[in-house]
Amino acid sequence: MDFELSDEQRAFVELAGDFARNELEPHAADWDRDHYFPVEVLYKAGGLGFCGLYTPESAGGLGLSRLDASLIFERLSMGCTSTTAFLTIHNMVTWMIASFGAQDCWARWGEGLVSGQLLGSYCLTEANAGSDAVALKTSARRVGDHYELNGSKMFISGAGSTQVLVVMARTGGEGAGGISSFALDADSPGITYGRPEDKMGWNSQPTRTVTFEGVKVPAGQLLGREGEGFKIAMKGLDGGRINIASCSLGTAQQALNKARQYLQERSQFGRKLAEFQALQFTLADMATELVAARQLVRLAACRLDGGHADATTYCAMAKRFATDVGFRVCDQALQLYGGYGYIREYPLERYLRDTRVHRILEGTNEIMKLLIARRVLAEGSGEL
Amino acid sequence: MDFELSDEQRAFVELAGDFARNELEPHAADWDRDHYFPVEVLYKAGGLGFCGLYTPESAGGLGLSRLDASLIFERLSMGCTSTTAFLTIHNMVTWMIASFGAQDCWARWGEGLVSGQLLGSYCLTEANAGSDAVALKTSARRVGDHYELNGSKMFISGAGSTQVLVVMARTGGEGAGGISSFALDADSPGITYGRPEDKMGWNSQPTRTVTFEGVKVPAGQLLGREGEGFKIAMKGLDGGRINIASCSLGTAQQALNKARQYLQERSQFGRKLAEFQALQFTLADMATELVAARQLVRLAACRLDGGHADATTYCAMAKRFATDVGFRVCDQALQLYGGYGYIREYPLERYLRDTRVHRILEGTNEIMKLLIARRVLAEGSGEL
Amino acid sequence: MDFELSDEQRAFVELAGDFARNELEPHAADWDRDHYFPVEVLYKAGGLGFCGLYTPESAGGLGLSRLDASLIFERLSMGCTSTTAFLTIHNMVTWMIASFGAQDCWARWGEGLVSGQLLGSYCLTEANAGSDAVALKTSARRVGDHYELNGSKMFISGAGSTQVLVVMARTGGEGAGGISSFALDADSPGITYGRPEDKMGWNSQPTRTVTFEGVKVPAGQLLGREGEGFKIAMKGLDGGRINIASCSLGTAQQALNKARQYLQERSQFGRKLAEFQALQFTLADMATELVAARQLVRLAACRLDGGHADATTYCAMAKRFATDVGFRVCDQALQLYGGYGYIREYPLERYLRDTRVHRILEGTNEIMKLLIARRVLAEGSGEL
Amino acid sequence: MDFELSDEQRAFVELAGDFARNELEPHAADWDRDHYFPVEVLYKAGGLGFCGLYTPESAGGLGLSRLDASLIFERLSMGCTSTTAFLTIHNMVTWMIASFGAQDCWARWGEGLVSGQLLGSYCLTEANAGSDAVALKTSARRVGDHYELNGSKMFISGAGSTQVLVVMARTGGEGAGGISSFALDADSPGITYGRPEDKMGWNSQPTRTVTFEGVKVPAGQLLGREGEGFKIAMKGLDGGRINIASCSLGTAQQALNKARQYLQERSQFGRKLAEFQALQFTLADMATELVAARQLVRLAACRLDGGHADATTYCAMAKRFATDVGFRVCDQALQLYGGYGYIREYPLERYLRDTRVHRILEGTNEIMKLLIARRVLAEGSGEL
Repeated sequence: MDFELSDEQRAFVELAGDFARNELEPHAADWDRDHYFPVEVLYKAGGLGFCGLYTPESAGGLGLSRLDASLIFERLSMGCTSTTAFLTIHNMVTWMIASFGAQDCWARWGEGLVSGQLLGSYCLTEANAGSDAVALKTSARRVGDHYELNGSKMFISGAGSTQVLVVMARTGGEGAGGISSFALDADSPGITYGRPEDKMGWNSQPTRTVTFEGVKVPAGQLLGREGEGFKIAMKGLDGGRINIASCSLGTAQQALNKARQYLQERSQFGRKLAEFQALQFTLADMATELVAARQLVRLAACRLDGGHADATTYCAMAKRFATDVGFRVCDQALQLYGGYGYIREYPLERYLRDTRVHRILEGTNEIMKLLIARRVLAEGSGEL
Repeated sequence: MDFELSDEQRAFVELAGDFARNELEPHAADWDRDHYFPVEVLYKAGGLGFCGLYTPESAGGLGLSRLDASLIFERLSMGCTSTTAFLTIHNMVTWMIASFGAQDCWARWGEGLVSGQLLGSYCLTEANAGSDAVALKTSARRVGDHYELNGSKMFISGAGSTQVLVVMARTGGEGAGGISSFALDADSPGITYGRPEDKMGWNSQPTRTVTFEGVKVPAGQLLGREGEGFKIAMKGLDGGRINIASCSLGTAQQALNKARQYLQERSQFGRKLAEFQALQFTLADMATELVAARQLVRLAACRLDGGHADATTYCAMAKRFATDVGFRVCDQALQLYGGYGYIREYPLERYLRDTRVHRILEGTNEIMKLLIARRVLAEGSGEL
Repeated sequence: MDFELSDEQRAFVELAGDFARNELEPHAADWDRDHYFPVEVLYKAGGLGFCGLYTPESAGGLGLSRLDASLIFERLSMGCTSTTAFLTIHNMVTWMIASFGAQDCWARWGEGLVSGQLLGSYCLTEANAGSDAVALKTSARRVGDHYELNGSKMFISGAGSTQVLVVMARTGGEGAGGISSFALDADSPGITYGRPEDKMGWNSQPTRTVTFEGVKVPAGQLLGREGEGFKIAMKGLDGGRINIASCSLGTAQQALNKARQYLQERSQFGRKLAEFQALQFTLADMATELVAARQLVRLAACRLDGGHADATTYCAMAKRFATDVGFRVCDQALQLYGGYGYIREYPLERYLRDTRVHRILEGTNEIMKLLIARRVLAEGSGEL
Repeated sequence: MDFELSDEQRAFVELAGDFARNELEPHAADWDRDHYFPVEVLYKAGGLGFCGLYTPESAGGLGLSRLDASLIFERLSMGCTSTTAFLTIHNMVTWMIASFGAQDCWARWGEGLVSGQLLGSYCLTEANAGSDAVALKTSARRVGDHYELNGSKMFISGAGSTQVLVVMARTGGEGAGGISSFALDADSPGITYGRPEDKMGWNSQPTRTVTFEGVKVPAGQLLGREGEGFKIAMKGLDGGRINIASCSLGTAQQALNKARQYLQERSQFGRKLAEFQALQFTLADMATELVAARQLVRLAACRLDGGHADATTYCAMAKRFATDVGFRVCDQALQLYGGYGYIREYPLERYLRDTRVHRILEGTNEIMKLLIARRVLAEGSGEL
């Protein structure tokens, strides 16, 4: 058992830390205010390999492990939660195409995706198929050498500003086995985008509905085989959950760092806030829960890397726990800042707004509990 | 012991409910988005007596009890948290001038304040005197028949858009006994206002710094006597804490109502969300905590009305508990809404942003705990 | 609205306080250690009217309200949680017989029950019908002018040491409508008692299984009518839940008082514990939650007294909230005591053990949540 | 980074599991009831090396790491919390003597301690020096070639039934630097033992006060050097905190296993409890928090093994978090058991009573928070 980072991992983390400090943090507040999607910065991130972190080296990615990616995303999110979160989705999409797409398919977008020149969106959720993703209605009907897509997707990160979509659609009957995954050009004829959703946070990435009306997708752009789409989507999400959990960890660490500094600098009643015992205890609890959450995320990442039979369960645990702890730590940091925590001149309220959605997306934390409980209660299952 | 509203109280609550539904709720999202301060609606509220709820009838107010005011604010906040919260501050200011101002003083502003034609701001907090309000530095030097104010106030609700200020300033030495309260015209020469703070929420009311440079305040505008200013400010806050707690209650009730409706309408996995037991339990906890918080707020209001020796402690308890519960209920309601909870098309995320500041202002919840603990540990004190 | 006790209520509370201090508190630790059921003290309590608090005056009881009873039980439980809890069950049984029993029936036991000379047990729970009480299997078959009882009851407080049983048994088909209630002599032929359960706490009252084998119960000992038994049982429990919640309140108040005193007396690091801010905050939270819980219990009691349509819901809320808060306050008080909290020389660990069961019995807190949620989600229901 | 056990570790865990199942679990309830200290079972444990787990091989111990020991203690505590907890203290004592004792000293007791033939007690706490251990008053005055001990120790695990004591006593002035550690025969003339404390739990190990009146301790039995005693005591506690945290983990895992099984077997309302979603969610939360706590404990153990500069902080975090989570999991498991959870026929209530003290001893969780906060706020300190 070993909890220490390797030298290589430390180097990656340092690189990510530099990027976060120099390219993300100075602009994060502006992007949030202006609802600006910093594609040029994502491209720069691609230059460092951050757009294809766990895409195989053979496909032009860095070929890192999920653990490595988690370390990097955690550190990047210290600079900008929302932008890093988009990057995690892009990485998921890129990995899905690299792993399940035909060679032609990868040839078309691969280089662009790993370099960050092309950006990807993950299109699963529908208005009536949120937590119950299996109920999705978007259809893909085989017509000759292509599929025809009809339907509508909701809450799609990056939609309207990305170039490649991975879309889960129904090629067969009801249930998970009737779903297939496709990669397609985001500007394919028949695709229309809704207006950007006005959100609580995650403002540096646009969120739109995507509507498909008779969109033709060449059969070669099927990912995996017909009927494997849900399985592929869920495989993507295992990693996606670690990634989003990592973004909560990094944001919470940043919130904790800021709170610590504030307590050390601010005086009230003639003493530094840092000298007030009740505030010290709050800080201690924040740090403790954060360190615990971090180990859980890394455990899950390692289990996913190692192909552990219960990897999905550990990913669900990590996502549930780290996003709840992350939000709570941000909330407490804001509270320690008092009135300053509530104004946008300081980043605390943004941390809270940005991490709030982590408890909801890529499977709500309620869905995570269902997944975990199902495993705990499985006949003949061992301890976790 | 009697927990039921009187017929008169029910009538007031109904009136407030109508106002909330017709005048506040339809516009609250727009005001939030546009950072619009709806003075014309506040004036309408004044027409119903809501600008001088617990100002004595003799002074033109409704002469209601703090309990009555709490009931009304709770119901109003179901329409717009932020606007109602400003109204509570205006009521506090109006009451302070009516209660502690000289006759001339009241003659000048009273009618305007109770009618809502004039709006008031409460100026206590300073950059270095937040939780430690006693440390305030703004000075008021007696010069002949007036005082000269110098200094700066921070986080002042309504500032720049109100006509009357109540300002706590130092006329004597250090400590609470050196502080006096003044009422003054908001456009007195020498007053300048900062730009509106960009806040997480509470966007329908502007928040600005107020700077006093040699501002002349006629001696007759002193509230109470020299050195009584801190006591007066704290008396205002006892009621203010009940009021803000009431705004948390109403917002949380609204969030609960919305969540209930959502669970009844939304289906996933082939069943109404309302049929999922874990979500039912969440709803039950929200309702239970909210009902408990409501009783505590009303207890505190009654104790304040009755001049109970421990009224300040009960007000602190009510503020601490109801603002924490209120935020938690809003947070859970947002979670029950899933992705819809995170977008501004629905009010859930606004409820969260608006109630977040209630845990901070009018004395942070940490300060409340100090006040409560001091009383619990007081020598010879009885049970609460 | 009025949160203050009447003079009469204050007098009762004082009387209960004296009894708690003089008759219960000095012996509570011994009774706990020796598993001693203090029937003679219960008889003394009967002398003060505490055995028929809300039994109608016409039936020889004090005819007090549920609110009055709650006040008294709260104060009594400050002396001994377990003994007071038994007393609440006895009161419930007494009230059920007085309210639903035929005149003959009351004539037989009434005087004994209200005086405390006879003690009563409430027999609802069965091994396979715990939370699902409606599923009970104990049968009562009508044979001529009597019923014949067969079956077995579990976790029966007082059983084996009481003289009167109220038993819920099935006279008809499945479901609630097939259940009837009976009062019977505890030593009727055919009744056998299991050995006393060894419990975590509640040691001053014996808990046993009760087995009925062909027990003859005269038809006149039916409470209410055939098929009304479940309704009667639940009516008993509405009050029972307030009572048990009151026992949690009183125990928690006692724990808080002890903790306060301990913090004032004990020094560490050269200062009184009372001077440590983090411990102060803990104390403040304990006090605040306790005061909130108390109002909720009293609200529920008033609503039950007033025959409010939602009385059952408020009783469920009160039971859920007050027993959870009560346990938590006891747990925190124990923690503040440190090592001394863990040894039986001090009462803190007993408070924890005794209040633990309140979250389970008279309907688990999970069942309370179901009841509350059902009401919150009821079609066309208003706010609570 | 690697979260998997090595084959050797798995073998040790399996061995510990067998021992727990065969030698501890079948008797744990009896030992608890009878307050029986199973010295013969501890001796058997010694036969497997469990009495000197991290004592160097050169000294006859197994020479395992703290991580290894944590794994073993976690598994053992699944059989009996209280007995395993004593074993952890014995290991700590044994390690202290092996690490800091002179050769003669070890020669005298070493073989007995590692074999379990001799048992050891750790004597730090005094009546007025609990959390503030540095304030201890027991004195050790140098007189020729020995020290003379006077004073009294409190809450000493095993005292009266162990053969070797490690005693922290004051050889110098006030403060930590005036404290020294000694090993001595438990039956040295002048030592008297109080009667066994009657405790909430931990009943399979006696707890007594130890009084020293002119006890002569040969100078060679000093551990380390004069004035190093507090540092040595704290070094012992770093490991001790991991150990006790491990006992919370194992007990909680056992509680979770039992609860899982109960939900799978017990039916109510015509369905297995396992099918009720709210109970599923509870189980999921229990499992998630437990897995997170486990990783934190193992992180701390690894950091202690690796001599990490912040090892003490991580040990404090692990102790705080795992003992709180452990207690909560046991409490929830008891709740899931309903009435059966409250009676001693089932082990749930024992788990709760036994783990309760883990939040108090070896430094209360409040002291842990102080340690953590001190580090978080240390000037120039990095992230944890």
